[in-house]
Amino acid sequence: MAGVSTPAMAAAVCNAGALGSIGVGATDAAGARVMIESLKRLTNKPFNVNVFTHQPAKADPARQRAWLDALAPVFGRFEAKPPPAIGEIYTSFLADEAMLELFLETRPAVVSLHFGLPPARTIDRLKGAGIVLFASATTLAEAEQAVAAGVDAVVAQGYEAGGHRGAFDPEAPDSQLGVIALTRLLASRLSVPVIAAGGIMDGDGIAAVLDLGAEAAQLGTAFIGCPESSADAFYRAALFGPSASATEMTALISGRPARCLANAFTVLKTGPLMGLTPPDYPIAYDAGKALAAAARAKGDGGFGAQWAGQGAPLARAMPAAELVMTLAEELRSARSA
Amino acid sequence: MAGVSTPAMAAAVCNAGALGSIGVGATDAAGARVMIESLKRLTNKPFNVNVFTHQPAKADPARQRAWLDALAPVFGRFEAKPPPAIGEIYTSFLADEAMLELFLETRPAVVSLHFGLPPARTIDRLKGAGIVLFASATTLAEAEQAVAAGVDAVVAQGYEAGGHRGAFDPEAPDSQLGVIALTRLLASRLSVPVIAAGGIMDGDGIAAVLDLGAEAAQLGTAFIGCPESSADAFYRAALFGPSASATEMTALISGRPARCLANAFTVLKTGPLMGLTPPDYPIAYDAGKALAAAARAKGDGGFGAQWAGQGAPLARAMPAAELVMTLAEELRSARSA
Repeated sequence: MAGVSTPAMAAAVCNAGALGSIGVGATDAAGARVMIESLKRLTNKPFNVNVFTHQPAKADPARQRAWLDALAPVFGRFEAKPPPAIGEIYTSFLADEAMLELFLETRPAVVSLHFGLPPARTIDRLKGAGIVLFASATTLAEAEQAVAAGVDAVVAQGYEAGGHRGAFDPEAPDSQLGVIALTRLLASRLSVPVIAAGGIMDGDGIAAVLDLGAEAAQLGTAFIGCPESSADAFYRAALFGPSASATEMTALISGRPARCLANAFTVLKTGPLMGLTPPDYPIAYDAGKALAAAARAKGDGGFGAQWAGQGAPLARAMPAAELVMTLAEELRSARSA
Repeated sequence: MAGVSTPAMAAAVCNAGALGSIGVGATDAAGARVMIESLKRLTNKPFNVNVFTHQPAKADPARQRAWLDALAPVFGRFEAKPPPAIGEIYTSFLADEAMLELFLETRPAVVSLHFGLPPARTIDRLKGAGIVLFASATTLAEAEQAVAAGVDAVVAQGYEAGGHRGAFDPEAPDSQLGVIALTRLLASRLSVPVIAAGGIMDGDGIAAVLDLGAEAAQLGTAFIGCPESSADAFYRAALFGPSASATEMTALISGRPARCLANAFTVLKTGPLMGLTPPDYPIAYDAGKALAAAARAKGDGGFGAQWAGQGAPLARAMPAAELVMTLAEELRSARSA
């Protein structure tokens, strides 16, 4: 939810009794400080801060050149040119000492890790500061690594989930495990709590994953339509339109597989980007964001990173606090049925 | 479960209180008659007969020749040669008047349709004979077509499910919808009962899909390990070995996408079969079965159609009746938790 969740949304979620999250993977320590401080002004409840723990990108000038050349005609549709060069727009938490120091200072209740695990020293320092650690896993093997590293709870990210696949190695074949199979497997094998994520849109979905042995459910797509999210009007229109029933996993936007509403960007796979390997995440994302901006400047919002999970057709547009209360009521009703 | 479920297994399931199924897609009306009569001798409970309703294959001699040529070195590993020609080894129910007559005569309680819908006349005749119709759907659009055609219940087949994807059009992009998202969507939109299928291995999984609004759960992979199934020793060893956690969707074995335990056949995608388009289902299956037989004759069971869903790591080897009773007990326990 980096770039979609806001301190206002996270605070509304927290104040309504759930664990609100902000994602700081798309900003630096200074930006994260502003978000955390805003959030603390809006709630005194525990909250979660999500970071990206990918292996830092390897620059590949030839691949990047080929990528920009292939995108040039698409930029051309909007009387624009690709940026002359693209680079690593986000610093991985693995290489961001300032972000670590910020967490040790501001002590969010929970820090969640996506794309892999930081070194033992970082985990020890976070835990030493009383911070609870979550880590995403897409397979039993990743989950077992997380537990061995000392993570307190594992987020079982099903293939249904919107946004970036949390797989540790983006080059390895994707397990594509769905939430039911993954949650049940992790819940039956791990010694730590499992949080199910992917395709869960309402209290009935939460009840379902609790039945599978999850201790909690993580919902992202369900909150995109909330007025407090930073989703733009194009994103909201796509979410509540026919493309909601056609999400797809694409690496073209950011350089790593992520589930997105089918849009003008995902369609490039059968056109200008066919057969090309994107630059490493997040270098490709630099080009992707430039293209989305060029299109948006001409009134075309179809090239955005419109991340969404397979539950998108069940999205609702209601204030975040109301959504949390509705989810709780639906869960109570499902469990007493 | 065609080729895996047996009348003995289906009868054990029925007698234990669930709805047992046999698949007759891999045989003709004469073979189906033997199976149905065997089953009727073993149970007087209602049972389900599953048929394949694919569009009949189009022969493509050049594609078939290229396919056999590419497979020749793999046959060679087992001192064998590909068959000189391959053909449509199964007749689609859409073109099998004798099978329809058999159903009208023997009147199984339920006939389930996989790969699409027969013409209105066939549906009318089956329903006129008092037969309840189920149809698999992998999207809301397919489910709505099934309901409009008069089907009594829709099987929401998640991407997790083992065996053949029931998608109506194998050429169209796959929705890849997982069970949670698909079941919740269908249950909230359809006027007929939804049966959830895919990744469900125990009573907790059944409880989960009931929470999502399904009226029932369909389990296949959970029954492969039963002594009554016709899975061979290689299949069982693979199911209870490390490849259980690595199922993949492949069209190489049969010509249509199907979820299989990763094995020597699925690996051909990065070798001799890379970049080739398989012949239409079930023509490719003719070659696939010949290769599996050639390998098995030399003691290598790794080329079988070892269909399995993503729940495979949770498979259990117990008699079918005991499994049904265990599932019921787990479900009771999950629902009272």
